[in-house]
Amino acid sequence: MTEQKLTELLRDMSLEEKVNQMSQVTGGFFNGEIVVTGPMADKGFTEDNVNLAGSVIGSMGAETLKSIQKNYMEKHPHHIPLLFMLDVINGYKTVFPIPLAQGASFEPELSEQCASVAAKEASVSGLHVTFAPMTDLVRDARWGRVMESTGEDPYLNSLFCAAMVRGFQGNSLKDNYAIAACVKHFAGYGAPTAGRDYNTVELSEHTFREFYLPSYQAGIDAGAALVMTSFNTVNGIPATGNKKLMRDILREQMKFDGVLISDWAAIEETIYHGYCADREEAAVRAVEAGVDIDMMTGIYSENLCQMVRDGKIREELIDEACLRILRLKNNLGLFENPYKDADQKKEQEYILCEEHRKLAREAAKKSFVLLKNEEHILPLDQQKKIAFIGPYVDNRNLFGAWSFIADAKDVMTLHEAVQEQYVSENSTFCQGSPMLGADVCLEGFGEQQQQSYTQEQEDHMLREAVQAAKEADIVVLAIGEDRLQSGEATSNANIRIPEVQEALLDRIAEVNQNIVVVLFSGRPLDIREINKKAKAILQVWLPGTEGARAIADTLFGKYNPSGKLPMSFPYCVGQVPVHYNEYSTGRPHVEGKDKDRFRSKYLDIPNEPLYPFGYGLSYTTFEVSDIHLDRTWMDTSGQIEAEVTVKNTGNCTGTETLQLYIHDIAASVVRPVRELKDFKKVTLRPGEEKKVVFTITEQQLLFLTENGIYESEAGEFEIFIGKDSLTDNKASFVLKK
Amino acid sequence: MTEQKLTELLRDMSLEEKVNQMSQVTGGFFNGEIVVTGPMADKGFTEDNVNLAGSVIGSMGAETLKSIQKNYMEKHPHHIPLLFMLDVINGYKTVFPIPLAQGASFEPELSEQCASVAAKEASVSGLHVTFAPMTDLVRDARWGRVMESTGEDPYLNSLFCAAMVRGFQGNSLKDNYAIAACVKHFAGYGAPTAGRDYNTVELSEHTFREFYLPSYQAGIDAGAALVMTSFNTVNGIPATGNKKLMRDILREQMKFDGVLISDWAAIEETIYHGYCADREEAAVRAVEAGVDIDMMTGIYSENLCQMVRDGKIREELIDEACLRILRLKNNLGLFENPYKDADQKKEQEYILCEEHRKLAREAAKKSFVLLKNEEHILPLDQQKKIAFIGPYVDNRNLFGAWSFIADAKDVMTLHEAVQEQYVSENSTFCQGSPMLGADVCLEGFGEQQQQSYTQEQEDHMLREAVQAAKEADIVVLAIGEDRLQSGEATSNANIRIPEVQEALLDRIAEVNQNIVVVLFSGRPLDIREINKKAKAILQVWLPGTEGARAIADTLFGKYNPSGKLPMSFPYCVGQVPVHYNEYSTGRPHVEGKDKDRFRSKYLDIPNEPLYPFGYGLSYTTFEVSDIHLDRTWMDTSGQIEAEVTVKNTGNCTGTETLQLYIHDIAASVVRPVRELKDFKKVTLRPGEEKKVVFTITEQQLLFLTENGIYESEAGEFEIFIGKDSLTDNKASFVLKK
Repeated sequence: MTEQKLTELLRDMSLEEKVNQMSQVTGGFFNGEIVVTGPMADKGFTEDNVNLAGSVIGSMGAETLKSIQKNYMEKHPHHIPLLFMLDVINGYKTVFPIPLAQGASFEPELSEQCASVAAKEASVSGLHVTFAPMTDLVRDARWGRVMESTGEDPYLNSLFCAAMVRGFQGNSLKDNYAIAACVKHFAGYGAPTAGRDYNTVELSEHTFREFYLPSYQAGIDAGAALVMTSFNTVNGIPATGNKKLMRDILREQMKFDGVLISDWAAIEETIYHGYCADREEAAVRAVEAGVDIDMMTGIYSENLCQMVRDGKIREELIDEACLRILRLKNNLGLFENPYKDADQKKEQEYILCEEHRKLAREAAKKSFVLLKNEEHILPLDQQKKIAFIGPYVDNRNLFGAWSFIADAKDVMTLHEAVQEQYVSENSTFCQGSPMLGADVCLEGFGEQQQQSYTQEQEDHMLREAVQAAKEADIVVLAIGEDRLQSGEATSNANIRIPEVQEALLDRIAEVNQNIVVVLFSGRPLDIREINKKAKAILQVWLPGTEGARAIADTLFGKYNPSGKLPMSFPYCVGQVPVHYNEYSTGRPHVEGKDKDRFRSKYLDIPNEPLYPFGYGLSYTTFEVSDIHLDRTWMDTSGQIEAEVTVKNTGNCTGTETLQLYIHDIAASVVRPVRELKDFKKVTLRPGEEKKVVFTITEQQLLFLTENGIYESEAGEFEIFIGKDSLTDNKASFVLKK
Repeated sequence: MTEQKLTELLRDMSLEEKVNQMSQVTGGFFNGEIVVTGPMADKGFTEDNVNLAGSVIGSMGAETLKSIQKNYMEKHPHHIPLLFMLDVINGYKTVFPIPLAQGASFEPELSEQCASVAAKEASVSGLHVTFAPMTDLVRDARWGRVMESTGEDPYLNSLFCAAMVRGFQGNSLKDNYAIAACVKHFAGYGAPTAGRDYNTVELSEHTFREFYLPSYQAGIDAGAALVMTSFNTVNGIPATGNKKLMRDILREQMKFDGVLISDWAAIEETIYHGYCADREEAAVRAVEAGVDIDMMTGIYSENLCQMVRDGKIREELIDEACLRILRLKNNLGLFENPYKDADQKKEQEYILCEEHRKLAREAAKKSFVLLKNEEHILPLDQQKKIAFIGPYVDNRNLFGAWSFIADAKDVMTLHEAVQEQYVSENSTFCQGSPMLGADVCLEGFGEQQQQSYTQEQEDHMLREAVQAAKEADIVVLAIGEDRLQSGEATSNANIRIPEVQEALLDRIAEVNQNIVVVLFSGRPLDIREINKKAKAILQVWLPGTEGARAIADTLFGKYNPSGKLPMSFPYCVGQVPVHYNEYSTGRPHVEGKDKDRFRSKYLDIPNEPLYPFGYGLSYTTFEVSDIHLDRTWMDTSGQIEAEVTVKNTGNCTGTETLQLYIHDIAASVVRPVRELKDFKKVTLRPGEEKKVVFTITEQQLLFLTENGIYESEAGEFEIFIGKDSLTDNKASFVLKK
C-alpha cells in the first residue's frame, strides 16, 4: 500500500477505530467468539475495544494466530490486520545464550544470525514483532535484568543492538521470516538506584546522553521499527509520559519515526509514580509524549475518544499515532498478506531444526568465559576419574528467564552431553545439593518455584557428592544461580551463589583440591569464595538449548574458549556500581602503587573488580607486542595506524580478542579513563603470530563537549591495545586542529 | 573600613599583591623569618608568594598566630592582615558529637550553641574562618564522610546548616568570638558513586536542584561568609572549574556574594580529573568559575600575574576575587584589629572550661539513639552485676576523625565515667578484643594506625571477657568502628563492625543473653548480627569530649534517650544507597502486603532499612492519636492545622519528637513518598498528654515543578504525623488554586 493509500485509509477510519489501533490486548481475549471476561473488563476493555484493538501480545502458533487474524479481520470495519507481538529475546523455541552471554562473544555478527533464526521460528509461528533487543547500559549486578543486556560498554552494546535489529528485521520487513524489532527501554532503564528493578534512575544529563543513549541510537539507525518506553523516570518524569524525552530527544534529535510502544502497563503506572492524578491525565501525558501503543492497560481505549470529543486531546495526535501503526503493518506487508509467514508446516520444519541447534551450540561455546585455569586443569583429561557434581549436572533448565516458550524437554543435561560424546566410564554424576536453599525466596514465581527437599534428602545428596569427590581425580562442579534468579524483577542485595551451593563447594573443597567450577548465572556474581577454592572457573551464563553440549565440548577441549566479560565481575556487592569506563576523579588511586591516604578508594577492598570488562582466558596463551604507531599525530581528516603483533605462545590453537581503548587526557567535559573503540579477533595456531592493525580516525574521538554537540577536541590521547580493559600496553598520540 | 576605602585599597594594590590574596599557604611556611623550604617550593610557592599570601590554613594558637600576623603585616606593602583558617568542625578543643550525631538530636538550636562554643575557643586561639558546616546530603553509608553531614534529609540539613552558620558567625563577624563559616562542599559531594570518596556524582538535574541544593542555600541565606567547592564533577565538569555551577547557580540563582574557596588542592585536581591540560588551564577555569581562593596549590600564585599580562585572563576577574577577600577581612574587623580575639589568657580561661564541657555532655546525650530495648534491660539496674566489655571501655578516643586538635587526655573513658558516678562494686571492666583486626587496613593513617596484639594477647583478652560475661547479670558491650574508620577518605565496602569485634560479640552471646550494645560509629552500619544478639542497642556515634559521662548517664537512667536517626541504617550494604524520601516508582512494593512478583523490590531482603530515618526509642513509651485536621482543604494563602495528642504511656519522663511528613500524590515532577516538613519535641511525665499542632502552609508544598520554578500544584496531599518516617498515622487534604 502506498503512503497515500494509508493516509486515505486513516481518513476513512472512525475515531474509535483509530484510537483502538493504539491499544494492545492479549490473545486470550479472543476466545473464538469474543467474550468480555472478568480480567478483560478489569483492565477497562470492552468487547468493542477488543474487536478493534490494533495488536495482540503474548500469543503464538501459526494455527492460533491465523485463526485470530481471520476472525478479527472479518469483523473489522476496514479489515485492518492485527499485529502479533511477543518477547522473543534470545531465541524462540531454539534458545540461544542470554544476551549478556552473547555480549561475551564479542561477535555481533553471530548474534545477528541468532536473531535471524529466532525471527524465522517466530515468524512461521505467526508473529510480527518482537520486544527485543534490550540495549540498556548496565553497571550494577544487583539488577537481575542485566541478563537481558549486552553489558556495560556503549560501543559494544551499540554493535550488538544494531546486529540484533538487522538479524530480526532482515533487509526488509516484508521479506520472508523477518519480524520487526523493538529497541528497549527508552531510556536509562539499566541504571536503577541500588540495583532495585524499576527504581529511580539518577544520571547526570551528560552521562545519560553520552553513554546511555548511543546504543538506542544504533538500533534506530539500524532501522528498528519500534522503540519501547522504559518504566523509570528520567529527570523526575516517567519516561512513558515524558514529552521532552520522547518528542525532543527520541523523535527530533535521534530521528526515530517508527512506533513507540509503552512497556507493560507503563501508561497506567504514571499514576503510581505520582505523576498523573488519574487515568485521563495518564492518557493525555502519554499521547502528548507520542506513545503510540498502550501495552496492556485500557487507558487509551477507555479515554481517548471522549477526550478528543471534549477537546482535551487534539485529534491530530491520534492520527499521527494511528498512521505510524498502520505504516508498520504496511511495512510488514500485512495488508497484502495478513498471515505473513505463519505456516504450520514450516513450524514443524524449522523450529529446533538441526541448523538452528547447531547455531545455538556455536553461540553458547563462544559466550563462555574462562576466568581461571590453574595448572592447565582444563581441558579435562579423559583418562582421569572425574566427578560431575552440582544442581546443574542433571538439569535441563539451561535457558534464562525470558525463554518461557522454550521447553526443557528439548534440552540435554550436562550429564547426557558428557555421556553422549566423551568417555564417561571414569565419571560419576550427582546433584550434591538443591539449587536453592532457604536464603532464596522466589515468591510470586508461581509453579516455577523451587523444588523442596527434606533435610534427610539434602544430607544424603551431600554425602553422596563428598564420597564421589573423594574418589575422583577432578571434580567438575556445575553450580550457580537458578535461572529464575535473574531476569525482570529479580534484584538481589546478595550477589553470591545460593548458600546451599556455597556449602557444597566448601565440603567438596575439603576432600578434593582439583575443582573446576562451571558457573551458571544471569549476572556477574561475587565469586571470591569460588575463586579461592577452584582451580578453574568456566563462566557459562545461561547457555540455552544446546548449552550442555557446548559445555562438554569446552570442558574436554574440543572447543577452546574465547569469550570476554561484557560486564565487570565485582569484588563484592559493596563495590557496585562498578565499570571499567569510569571517570578518573581528581584523586585517582593506583592499586599497589599509591600509598596516599586521600585517594578515591576503599579502605577494605581494591577499586578494581575481581575480573574486569574484556577479560577472558584461553587454553593457550598469547603474547601481545608493544604498540607501534605509524605516526604520532593526526588532524581531523587524518588517521593513525596502531599495530601490534600477537603470538600464540601456548600448545593449542586459540582465539584472542584484541581490544583498542582510547583515553582523551584532557577535555572540556571529563572523559572515561578508557573507552573501547574497536576490537579484532585473531585465531592462531601454536607458535603462530599475526600483525593486527587498528585504524584510529577522528570518529573515535568524538564526544559530547561542553558545547553540547559531538565533536573532537585537540590534544593528547592515550591508546591501549591488549587482552582486557586493564591492559597496560600503551601508546599516545596528538590530535591537531 | 567603608566599601569605598576597600575599593581604593584594591586600586592601589599591585597585580602581584592582588593575585596573592587569592592564594593560601600553611602556617608552617612562616618560620619566624620566611624561608622557602622544599615542600613549599614543590607546591610552586616562592618566598614572595608567601610574603603576600592572603590566608593561612592549619595553624592555631593565639601566640603563634599573633606573631605570624605581626611579622607578615610589617612586611606587606599595604599591611593587609592575613586570614587564619582551620577545620573547626564539631568543636575545637572541647569536642562535641560528630555532625551526624548532632543531626540525631533533631535540635538545631543545640548545634548552634555548640558552634558558638567552638567559635569562641577557635577565635581566642587566633582563628578567623572555619571550614564548616558541611551540609552535603548523604544516602550511602559506605561513604565515610557521612560522619560530617547531618544526614539524608534536605529540610533537617537546612535547619542544621543555618543553625551552625549562626553559631559560628554570631550576629556580626566583628563581634567577639565570631568566626566566619564556610558552607561546603558545593555541590553534591555527598553522592559519590558506589560510596567511594571523591568519586563521580551522578544525579539528575532535578534531584540535584530539588534535594541537594537547598541546605547550601539555607547556609547562604543564614549569611555564611564563605562557600567551598567540592571535589567531584557536576554534570561532567569538576565543580572547582565549573562556571555554570558557580556563576549561574551559586552566584546568580542562589545569591551568594561571599568568598568562594577551593577544597584542598582542588584547582590542581581539575588536571587529574582530565578537565584541564595543564596548570595554566586550571588557573583560567577556576578564575573564570569565580573561585576566589586557591587552597594549598601554587596554581594561582605561579600563573595568574603572567596570564593577566598576557591577556589570557581579564584583570577584572582578579579584582573581583581580591575585593571579596578584602571585604571578608574587613567584615571580620581585621583592618582595625588584625588579631581579633586572639588572646592567650582567654585560651586558658575558655578552652575546655566547665561550661563548654557541660554543653558537650548535653549535646552527646541528645545525640544518642536507642535502637532497641527488650525487656526494659535499659536503664541498667545498679544492683545487678554488670560486665563492661569491649575496645571502647577503656578508650579515650571518643571523638571523630576531624578532631585532630583535640587531646585524648582531656577525655574520660567509659570505665572512669561509670566509676565516677555509679555504683561499680558489682561491675567488671575489660577490653575483650582489639579495636581492629586484620580485616581493616588503615594504610596511610600515619602514627594513628591501629595497635597490634599478639595472638596470645588477643586470646587472653577474649578469655577474660568471656569469664566476666559468664559471671555477670548483664553485659554492656562497648563496640563499634574505630574513629579513623569514618571521615574523609574512609570509604568501606563492608559496613559492619570489625570482624574481631563481631567475634567477641559471638563469644559473649554464647555465655550471656543479657547484652546491651553501646555502638560507636561514624556512619550507619549493617547491624543485623548485633540486632539478633543484643537485647538493647544504644547508638552513641563518636560522642566527643564528654561522651563517656553522657553514656554513663544514659545507661544508668539519669538521662532518658531521645535521639532520632538522621540517616537510615541499611539492612545490608547491598541495599545502599537507601533513604526514606525516595520516589514511589511505577511499581511500588508494600512489604508484607504485596505478593506480586513484578514490584520494585529485592528477592532476598526487604526494601526498608533495618532502622529508618527518624527512628529512635525512649525508656518510656508514647502513644500518638489519630490526626485531626481543622479543615480538609486550603488555598495558597490559607493554612491547615493538624493536631495530634501524644501521651506518655510508660513509667518515666521522656521526650518524643513528633515528625510531620507530607506527600504530594500527583505532581508534574514526581515527589518523594514522604518529606519531612516539620517536627516538634514534647517532654511528658508518665501519664501526661499534650496536644501538638502543626500548621501546614503553601510554603511546605512548594517544589521545583516542570516549569523549573518553585511553586505549588493543586491537588491532594497526604500528611503523616508520628514517631518516625515509617509511621502509618495518616490524613489527607486538598490544595485548591
